[in-house]
Amino acid sequence: MAEQHKSNKMWGGRFEEQPSSAMQRINTSIDVDKRLWRQDIRASIIHCEMLMQQGIISETDGQAIIGGLTQIYNDIDEGRFTFKTELEDIHMNVESALSELIGDAAGRLHTARSRNDQVVTGFRLWLRDATEELVQKIELFQDTLESLMTIHTGTIMPGFTHLQAAQPVSLSLHLGAYYEMMERDKSRFLDCSERMNENPLGAAALAGTPFPIDRDCTAAKLGFERPMKNTMDAVSARDFACEFLFCAAQCGLHLSRLAEEIILWSSQQFSFVTLADSWSTGSSIMPQKKNPDAAELIRGKSGRLTGNLVQMMTVLKGLPLAYNKDLQEDKEPVFDSFDTLSLCLEAMEGMLSTARFNTDAMRSAAESGFTTATALADWLVMHLNIPFRQAHHITGAIVKDAETKNCPLSALSLADLQKHEPRITEKIFDVLRLPPP
Amino acid sequence: MAEQHKSNKMWGGRFEEQPSSAMQRINTSIDVDKRLWRQDIRASIIHCEMLMQQGIISETDGQAIIGGLTQIYNDIDEGRFTFKTELEDIHMNVESALSELIGDAAGRLHTARSRNDQVVTGFRLWLRDATEELVQKIELFQDTLESLMTIHTGTIMPGFTHLQAAQPVSLSLHLGAYYEMMERDKSRFLDCSERMNENPLGAAALAGTPFPIDRDCTAAKLGFERPMKNTMDAVSARDFACEFLFCAAQCGLHLSRLAEEIILWSSQQFSFVTLADSWSTGSSIMPQKKNPDAAELIRGKSGRLTGNLVQMMTVLKGLPLAYNKDLQEDKEPVFDSFDTLSLCLEAMEGMLSTARFNTDAMRSAAESGFTTATALADWLVMHLNIPFRQAHHITGAIVKDAETKNCPLSALSLADLQKHEPRITEKIFDVLRLPPP
Amino acid sequence: MAEQHKSNKMWGGRFEEQPSSAMQRINTSIDVDKRLWRQDIRASIIHCEMLMQQGIISETDGQAIIGGLTQIYNDIDEGRFTFKTELEDIHMNVESALSELIGDAAGRLHTARSRNDQVVTGFRLWLRDATEELVQKIELFQDTLESLMTIHTGTIMPGFTHLQAAQPVSLSLHLGAYYEMMERDKSRFLDCSERMNENPLGAAALAGTPFPIDRDCTAAKLGFERPMKNTMDAVSARDFACEFLFCAAQCGLHLSRLAEEIILWSSQQFSFVTLADSWSTGSSIMPQKKNPDAAELIRGKSGRLTGNLVQMMTVLKGLPLAYNKDLQEDKEPVFDSFDTLSLCLEAMEGMLSTARFNTDAMRSAAESGFTTATALADWLVMHLNIPFRQAHHITGAIVKDAETKNCPLSALSLADLQKHEPRITEKIFDVLRLPPP
Amino acid sequence: MAEQHKSNKMWGGRFEEQPSSAMQRINTSIDVDKRLWRQDIRASIIHCEMLMQQGIISETDGQAIIGGLTQIYNDIDEGRFTFKTELEDIHMNVESALSELIGDAAGRLHTARSRNDQVVTGFRLWLRDATEELVQKIELFQDTLESLMTIHTGTIMPGFTHLQAAQPVSLSLHLGAYYEMMERDKSRFLDCSERMNENPLGAAALAGTPFPIDRDCTAAKLGFERPMKNTMDAVSARDFACEFLFCAAQCGLHLSRLAEEIILWSSQQFSFVTLADSWSTGSSIMPQKKNPDAAELIRGKSGRLTGNLVQMMTVLKGLPLAYNKDLQEDKEPVFDSFDTLSLCLEAMEGMLSTARFNTDAMRSAAESGFTTATALADWLVMHLNIPFRQAHHITGAIVKDAETKNCPLSALSLADLQKHEPRITEKIFDVLRLPPP
Repeated sequence: MAEQHKSNKMWGGRFEEQPSSAMQRINTSIDVDKRLWRQDIRASIIHCEMLMQQGIISETDGQAIIGGLTQIYNDIDEGRFTFKTELEDIHMNVESALSELIGDAAGRLHTARSRNDQVVTGFRLWLRDATEELVQKIELFQDTLESLMTIHTGTIMPGFTHLQAAQPVSLSLHLGAYYEMMERDKSRFLDCSERMNENPLGAAALAGTPFPIDRDCTAAKLGFERPMKNTMDAVSARDFACEFLFCAAQCGLHLSRLAEEIILWSSQQFSFVTLADSWSTGSSIMPQKKNPDAAELIRGKSGRLTGNLVQMMTVLKGLPLAYNKDLQEDKEPVFDSFDTLSLCLEAMEGMLSTARFNTDAMRSAAESGFTTATALADWLVMHLNIPFRQAHHITGAIVKDAETKNCPLSALSLADLQKHEPRITEKIFDVLRLPPP
Repeated sequence: MAEQHKSNKMWGGRFEEQPSSAMQRINTSIDVDKRLWRQDIRASIIHCEMLMQQGIISETDGQAIIGGLTQIYNDIDEGRFTFKTELEDIHMNVESALSELIGDAAGRLHTARSRNDQVVTGFRLWLRDATEELVQKIELFQDTLESLMTIHTGTIMPGFTHLQAAQPVSLSLHLGAYYEMMERDKSRFLDCSERMNENPLGAAALAGTPFPIDRDCTAAKLGFERPMKNTMDAVSARDFACEFLFCAAQCGLHLSRLAEEIILWSSQQFSFVTLADSWSTGSSIMPQKKNPDAAELIRGKSGRLTGNLVQMMTVLKGLPLAYNKDLQEDKEPVFDSFDTLSLCLEAMEGMLSTARFNTDAMRSAAESGFTTATALADWLVMHLNIPFRQAHHITGAIVKDAETKNCPLSALSLADLQKHEPRITEKIFDVLRLPPP
Repeated sequence: MAEQHKSNKMWGGRFEEQPSSAMQRINTSIDVDKRLWRQDIRASIIHCEMLMQQGIISETDGQAIIGGLTQIYNDIDEGRFTFKTELEDIHMNVESALSELIGDAAGRLHTARSRNDQVVTGFRLWLRDATEELVQKIELFQDTLESLMTIHTGTIMPGFTHLQAAQPVSLSLHLGAYYEMMERDKSRFLDCSERMNENPLGAAALAGTPFPIDRDCTAAKLGFERPMKNTMDAVSARDFACEFLFCAAQCGLHLSRLAEEIILWSSQQFSFVTLADSWSTGSSIMPQKKNPDAAELIRGKSGRLTGNLVQMMTVLKGLPLAYNKDLQEDKEPVFDSFDTLSLCLEAMEGMLSTARFNTDAMRSAAESGFTTATALADWLVMHLNIPFRQAHHITGAIVKDAETKNCPLSALSLADLQKHEPRITEKIFDVLRLPPP
Repeated sequence: MAEQHKSNKMWGGRFEEQPSSAMQRINTSIDVDKRLWRQDIRASIIHCEMLMQQGIISETDGQAIIGGLTQIYNDIDEGRFTFKTELEDIHMNVESALSELIGDAAGRLHTARSRNDQVVTGFRLWLRDATEELVQKIELFQDTLESLMTIHTGTIMPGFTHLQAAQPVSLSLHLGAYYEMMERDKSRFLDCSERMNENPLGAAALAGTPFPIDRDCTAAKLGFERPMKNTMDAVSARDFACEFLFCAAQCGLHLSRLAEEIILWSSQQFSFVTLADSWSTGSSIMPQKKNPDAAELIRGKSGRLTGNLVQMMTVLKGLPLAYNKDLQEDKEPVFDSFDTLSLCLEAMEGMLSTARFNTDAMRSAAESGFTTATALADWLVMHLNIPFRQAHHITGAIVKDAETKNCPLSALSLADLQKHEPRITEKIFDVLRLPPP
């Protein structure tokens, strides 16, 4: 039994003891990396095709391998495959299954490669696919923002600075800020994806291989731009994972800002937005509550995305070349950030697209906060040629006046205004009033 | 069907739409928080006993509830319970099962409490247990260190600063440094556990409850020191989780330092230690390798522990009172840090206790690195009354001499030494030589 | 000149080249660590006294040293001392000045110690003092909270969950939550301070010293509980700095939560609080604005405190024993976190103690948000013996009714209420109405 | 005096009290942001030119402003300018000086802009310049790497995985891995710089301005690609700062990996490299030490760069639009990361370019570690057509044999080898031996 176990092992050749139980538990990664199965098998098939093409393995062996791998692919796809923990990772699970299916020829698949280049090839392929998916989700969310922006060009609300009503803006402008943030997040993901899209396959353990492989060929078939230049870099670099995690964390921070605003706007105090029932929850004890749970979770999950980035950066700190087992800790944060950000984007899109904006409440808030004070100051400069700083002082005095009278700026009389600056005319009311709805 | 679904919901009373699919996915926590089942049911039983005792619910209802909860406990324990995702979390899963078992009386269990105090009660209980378990694992690891320290009092090795051999030390001293670190880590966990050991139950949603509950009673039965003073604090504080995560991360950093040393010492260059086969792995392509994977993973997992801390700290940043759904993100990092640190402690203990220290290689490294230079300088001060700074300059010159001659300090002749300071005597060789093995 | 420079160096004995310019810039720490001057000189004097007492240096030399150190202390204190960058750090600046003052005897001060134990001794002393100061600032802030809590026992406001008005609470309860958080933060600082209060002096470079020193004596005089047990631990441990940084970051997170609430409450939408002019700023373009800048900065500075912690944790990751120069990066984050948290506590105290709470606005918000719904549900359970879950459903229906009628719960008629549950009596209005102001 | 003070303030118009002392201390940023003076004045001059060109201010006022600003620029450049803390920040310091120089006309400079767009314009310009400088430093470092790579193509050393000697590689390949990492770091910085290179000027406080400004004109003159589309985004986005901080942290992590290797290689155990005296330090107590302080500091400073990133990410978490004072915390981490990374790159370049590589020690390490085992396995596959997995098992047995005999693989006899696989021929020694030096 022990014997049998050891013969299954890729590396057990000269070892006299079996791994201890805790060793197996800390070492095993199959629960995490089985998610790479599509990419791993795909890369193996292409590696095998290249080996055949280069005459490194025979056509017979190659066809047997490809047939076996295809069957394993289908088995996994259709849920017929059992992953075994004692086989450590996805690569050994697949190879072991291949061996059972086709016998000794399976042993030729690993010619001219190593787990070090194999794993990072699958991981890069996975990340490329994942990035594409995230970019699509960002675009879907941008579509929703764009629709809302079109509808709400004329929806006036207070623009805030320091959470104080500052100037009237349109809801369209406000949402447009997030459109732009998403645009840059998308652009970061694309840069990251392009930068990582190089072929590590052929680096083998760290030093390449004496076999006459064709790395351009595998690069082309796998959709990589080119083979990575340096084989030690190929197996030990994980900056691509860090960069992905940063892109995700940054996007998550942007979503956390919007989430915060939705939470604020959903409060009775703001009442700028009412979430759909399908995007709210109630309370076990306070039946009147309509809680913006999804927004809160999106806000909170920015922590998770940031934590994942810090995890990976800590792993890389001070790590000598080339491959070290620490790097096995790369996949879990990446998978988690992908899942988390996907869900957050989907939830944000769903929540916003079904929300009802209370345009009256928004307008009314814009009216009550002296938000046209800046326009007043600008009018003084523009029409009376008063230096900006002085216009600012005059405006300050007028606002104080309105505050004392407890009325909006537009409700002051011309006489009131002229007490502060005699040259003010009726025309000023054009800027003191909000545009009509 | 929708009706049925809604009637299962704790909070669906006034809602007209069902949650959307993404909403359900982002909102659900059962996959994570089912781990609290023991603590949740235990706290519910004690809550129920108190309700009976205070006459808030009847003896009959109370006994039905306790009977039902006990059965659910046993069902879960014996694997007969099916957790349902649509029931969101552990609390609603249990309550729903209770309802099926005992009917309407189940609805009385939630009297005078809320999910807000319920969840944090279970979480604190879990963390208290988890901390106790970690402290035990630290102590087990300390036992192993202590055994090694006893054995290796006379094992001389170079003490390093800047990874340069500096002075001879014993392996016992070296390992003893980690013993002390673990001692402080343990003390931090105990402080954390003591600080968190207060009863949040009775805080209800945030404002307490008008029912005549007895919080001292539930505190005592649950092993809490006292009820938490402030009900809003009770439901919104998560500094206890942060502190636990910090304790775990700090302990993980200490382990990462030892892991780094084991990796260094396992290299051919150092050869200070040989890991057992059961704590090493081989390579798929390099059969001679004996890789310290467990040490590397422990080193890498310090990133995970740090990331989990950052996650939770980010969640808390800028969060207003009292309960917000963001706080649901508290359990996953805590569970993960517990699991990770448990495994790392176990693995470190196992790896060290089975490792073979190559005492000859250690001694020989201590001999070749001029590590007795400091002792030489101290001798000059002590016996010739030379000011320290001057003794240092003389020693520097003697080391340079030995380096040129490519010999250890103890191989210099007395004449050589006296060229630098004529008052040096034969006695100096007592400190230039390492103590006998 | 070069000669002269080299002779100033503590360690230049065998070196043939001077440090390059970039080397000097990266290596120098005097700009940062000069802040330790009081602690460094104090520890040197006590070290010197012990050396005399143990007969390791002569009374004459000892007195000369103490005299010189005292003069340097006064010179620095009165601004007459010039720190030199080329002397790297505070320790060499002081020693070099001592040498100029008293000549060769200065060279005896460094007997039986090393910069490794010297620097960490000064750092621990500094941190102990700093912690004491922070604890005092926390207590001052708690005093302010306590005064406000006494005043506002009867100030009714909405208690929020999910930023939705949930139940009426008193401002006193709300502020009391922060009192408790500060209490725990204080307790964490005290635990940290106690744990770190051990004497590293005498560990020398890493291996102790052959001189017959008395570490209990220096411990007692420096106010340390005891000498550190393990000399390698003494010079390489920095968990005390991490723990301090965590305590500061956690306290900063608590302040960020309160800061967020002050910002919310200062908004026109909430208008729960008006900050004093002395704690607000205006805008260069919007004269009506009264911005809660201090609160925003406190919220933002939680990032700085978290960043400092992550910095130090990253430094420790994977660092082998014993002293490594990486550890020089320990002081800047600690100094910065101390300064930052001190200022934040002071600012929060000042801002809160001068703020005006708009109790009418708070009460009115509590009235309009159906915040007595929970009390209603509890009444149904308590007086009509309806199971909690059913009471919840009835309450939900009543709230919906009030919402439709656009009136508070207390404005519904008894008939309205009885439509939902016929047994409801007039008494229910006692809980539907807020207590009188 | 108070009056005078208040009249200096940009925003003091309606305020009745002066800021408290702690308020001033927490609010002031001049100590940090004065570093933006060049960019601030440059942007102001171009803003002023545009205002003149558009007829928004008169030619006379405009020329006076430009003259004044030019004089202030020169005054600062030549150290004649005194920054005043009570004027809060760089912008108010410059504006106040302008006012003293040219009187009322100064008040017109701030027409059609706000501090919100002004500060972020200066900051983006500064960052663009800083990025360019860092890219140049990376390239200088790459030049050094390239020279070393050219020299050391034939320098054989062990390639490590898990810090175990794995296969022979050239030092050129090893250093080349870092060349590639730097190439990607550079590419990330360039992407970041390009993405941020948009003009926020004209966004004013958050809503743009009614004045007929020409944002394309200021964009072109300031070297920005285009005006930012969304004015609220323009003043509230700081993802560009996060991205810069990430790029710096990632580059710092790469340097920390090389630093770790230099530290390892400098140890007596490895002895692969000897640092120049000008890039080492000694010890105050151990005169024989030659410590790789610069490498250790570079390794440690990766913590600082990571901490700065976390700081900024924490600041952004949950921050509503548009400008909030929290954002003032953006500059210090960015300045610090720039300074830190600049110094690290410079130090790494200096340290490597002056280091001596001990090629004999490297070669000898490559010889002793069975590093040709992989080549042996590949030979078996290639020449005897043995499946890879089987070749691996045979190789494992041969290595064990050599280990028992305590000799390198190349010292085994053909007979020894044939015991494991009879078809092995003399040719195999071509791959068992390292290539000649």
